[in-house]
Amino acid sequence: MSKSITSRSADYAQWYNDLVLKGSLADYSAVRGCMVIKPYGFALWENMRDVLDRMFKETGHQNAYFPLFVPKSLFEAEEKNAEGFAKECAVVTHYRLKSDPAHKGKLIVDPEAKLEEELVVRPTSEAIIWNTYKDWIQSYRDLPILVNQWANVVRWEMRTRLFLRTSEFLWQEGHTAHATAPEAVEETRKMLDVYATFVEEYMALPVIKGVKTPTERFAGAEDTYCIEALMQDGKALQAGTSHFLGQNFAKAFDVKFLSKENKQEYVWATSWGVSTRLIGALVMAHSDDEGLVLPPRIAPVQVVIVPIYKGDEQKEKIDASVANITGGLKALGISVKYDDNDNNRPGWKFAEYELKGVPVRLAIGARDLEQNVVEVARRDTKEKTTVSLEGIAGYIKSLLEDIQANLYNRAKAFQQANITKADSWDEFVALLDEKGGFISAHWDGTPETEEKIKEQTKATIRCIPLNNEQEGGNCILTGAPSKERVLFARAY
Amino acid sequence: MSKSITSRSADYAQWYNDLVLKGSLADYSAVRGCMVIKPYGFALWENMRDVLDRMFKETGHQNAYFPLFVPKSLFEAEEKNAEGFAKECAVVTHYRLKSDPAHKGKLIVDPEAKLEEELVVRPTSEAIIWNTYKDWIQSYRDLPILVNQWANVVRWEMRTRLFLRTSEFLWQEGHTAHATAPEAVEETRKMLDVYATFVEEYMALPVIKGVKTPTERFAGAEDTYCIEALMQDGKALQAGTSHFLGQNFAKAFDVKFLSKENKQEYVWATSWGVSTRLIGALVMAHSDDEGLVLPPRIAPVQVVIVPIYKGDEQKEKIDASVANITGGLKALGISVKYDDNDNNRPGWKFAEYELKGVPVRLAIGARDLEQNVVEVARRDTKEKTTVSLEGIAGYIKSLLEDIQANLYNRAKAFQQANITKADSWDEFVALLDEKGGFISAHWDGTPETEEKIKEQTKATIRCIPLNNEQEGGNCILTGAPSKERVLFARAY
Repeated sequence: MSKSITSRSADYAQWYNDLVLKGSLADYSAVRGCMVIKPYGFALWENMRDVLDRMFKETGHQNAYFPLFVPKSLFEAEEKNAEGFAKECAVVTHYRLKSDPAHKGKLIVDPEAKLEEELVVRPTSEAIIWNTYKDWIQSYRDLPILVNQWANVVRWEMRTRLFLRTSEFLWQEGHTAHATAPEAVEETRKMLDVYATFVEEYMALPVIKGVKTPTERFAGAEDTYCIEALMQDGKALQAGTSHFLGQNFAKAFDVKFLSKENKQEYVWATSWGVSTRLIGALVMAHSDDEGLVLPPRIAPVQVVIVPIYKGDEQKEKIDASVANITGGLKALGISVKYDDNDNNRPGWKFAEYELKGVPVRLAIGARDLEQNVVEVARRDTKEKTTVSLEGIAGYIKSLLEDIQANLYNRAKAFQQANITKADSWDEFVALLDEKGGFISAHWDGTPETEEKIKEQTKATIRCIPLNNEQEGGNCILTGAPSKERVLFARAY
Repeated sequence: MSKSITSRSADYAQWYNDLVLKGSLADYSAVRGCMVIKPYGFALWENMRDVLDRMFKETGHQNAYFPLFVPKSLFEAEEKNAEGFAKECAVVTHYRLKSDPAHKGKLIVDPEAKLEEELVVRPTSEAIIWNTYKDWIQSYRDLPILVNQWANVVRWEMRTRLFLRTSEFLWQEGHTAHATAPEAVEETRKMLDVYATFVEEYMALPVIKGVKTPTERFAGAEDTYCIEALMQDGKALQAGTSHFLGQNFAKAFDVKFLSKENKQEYVWATSWGVSTRLIGALVMAHSDDEGLVLPPRIAPVQVVIVPIYKGDEQKEKIDASVANITGGLKALGISVKYDDNDNNRPGWKFAEYELKGVPVRLAIGARDLEQNVVEVARRDTKEKTTVSLEGIAGYIKSLLEDIQANLYNRAKAFQQANITKADSWDEFVALLDEKGGFISAHWDGTPETEEKIKEQTKATIRCIPLNNEQEGGNCILTGAPSKERVLFARAY
């Protein structure tokens, strides 16, 4: 191996960091808690973003852009939302630097350039957006508003991890406005389905759709729907959320509309978002001790071709053959990279592209050419096969589909094997410590019990699954009656 | 007209604001100097961004993402750059809000959450990026680095105008690193050409390529290349810049590489950017007193179809015909909107889509259907023609190309008619006041004279055109000898 990766069994957290850093997805930066997304990582994000953006547009949404800054007086208008984010806010207080009279060439904040009102760097944009919607909405004819924004947001974090929890991250945030509560709920559920479809079909990651308990809701929401994924270490990861905001923001910003019945009514709201955190989920869900394993449908490079040759004559023949292969693949919409860089040996390249998770690698040598074959290696199972160059593009196309399906099925089997029922406290604690995963257990429905369980085990209620089976039982902690199980897990 | 637009002759500045606001491109926001980009304006930006992004990738660049914040100590490292931007910096000094003990439900900045080092909200990213490149570059094998970033930046402005000058704006910034000065200069010029091609071929806006005088250079650059466009009021607008940064940032951040000759050398840099300001240029260059005029190649909607009917029976027949037309247009990659909204009358719709600058409007009524024709109106000349439905898609396709060419030719003729030579100070001043446009005049080459001319006339040297004719003469202000003319103008 060119770059050594810590194994999962030795240190899962370090394995993850090794993959992100050595797989060239991201770097630490000079700014506390902020990361640099490197070109390879950003290409992955672009692919994810483009699919999501298309799905949003197909469901009738348009993109827009709202200011980065939220004046403090707007930020605090919806009190629960403000309270929920106040502790994580980066605050702009001044608008100018000036030369430091004490140190030549250095700058200080100009005390005379203090803002009259401080500006919060958006941790989320409900406040600034609903303050704008007030101007856009007069009548039911102005509804619904179906808007999405791709943006950076800042939530000051004390303990950060690349992609999973950074002070600045990239995301999209949908903000919609509706005339009725049922319409807003329908939108909330629809976007949850969009997220689930995206994560399952493109990221090859099965999720559980559910609703959060009141304690775990987004600050300012009436209901928070979520998709929960399972990582290889048995911890859960919230992969996306969709919020029914009721009339909370409409009331905070006085956004009313004239209904068909000629009445002034408050507008109903939703918001929904996924972020670069999804990349963290992707890395942890599929990768192995050799490196990243990326699903073909979002991989920046789907196929890499490595030539194996001695001398220019062999190289020229291989080049000609590769040009054919590449042309055939591109015609099928497959992204392909031909790495004929002289500076590195084939073995180094094999390891490098395994590390980077390229789904399919072709190796082609002089002898292969004579026999009109190529060696095909798939990243997910590491199987190698010798395949005829005749019809190679079609072969690769179905291989990529096979890899995509295999990754999903593998993750699905893992998820299914790691949803376990617990019917007593001892069983619950033992499962958490020994097996992990989702634990399906009864809970008495009170925030107090939820909090106690969290304190004692670090497990939280990830969600109450949608269409949850109604089954009577007793709370694992208090023994109080319960009418359905909920899913607990330790989580990222 | 549904929404009244101030005419250009009455008040050019107000006309511009009317177009931006009533044409649904952008709105003012609650944050001083920041704007909301509305869905229609953002769709326009997306189209521009997508073309540019493709052009950047075709020239070998990759996207990445760097932090929003720049620690003050990094920001001040390249002194000229820091000095140039210090007066416009939004500064984050605290990372937490807390409840205001004096006012229930209100928040204050938590004085205990003061940052040890202040963070500047990026006005441009050279500092944070070159601090990162230090880790990425060891040897000549690591070069060139060809990276671009799409991002928001903040430059605190006292006087703002929608799109043209806002405190926060969206842009792209390319940041490249090279082993030699000639390579970096070549990159600088290449990206200037990419910008010129984009602005001319997609925005239909002719530009003059040139180089800035030292006074007008980007802070920290050795040379700033620019493209300059001309607005209808005779003022110039800088539409894009590409900077040769020499080794200034490499020295400030100590970025060296081991050359092929095994020597440690400083890296050579470029940066280049265009922003949402281009939308302002687009609006001012082509539009008229009825509204926006958008070039077909970047218009969010290229064709709008308005039905004219009485009763459901006529409507159904029109719907069926429109489905055919729409299908044919989409098959040719033409974006089309069918506006059969019952709430508005055809006349209102005609005015609305004129205001929004949709390049082609089709109106189709029951009688048209009988004759198998449709009324086609082009936005640029406002000509209407009756056209057979037979082969309508092909007709529209070439009409769109014709409109694109017409807009460019019109703007080009205007530009050519407004580059005027002045050979004396009186002539220069009279031209500026009476005609405007670019004034080609001799200048003695000193910053002092440049400054005096600016003070007395508000005209600046927009650029020294590339491949400028070498022609001896005398400075219009001082009479000192000069070897070439430069282009002056009042500018946005």
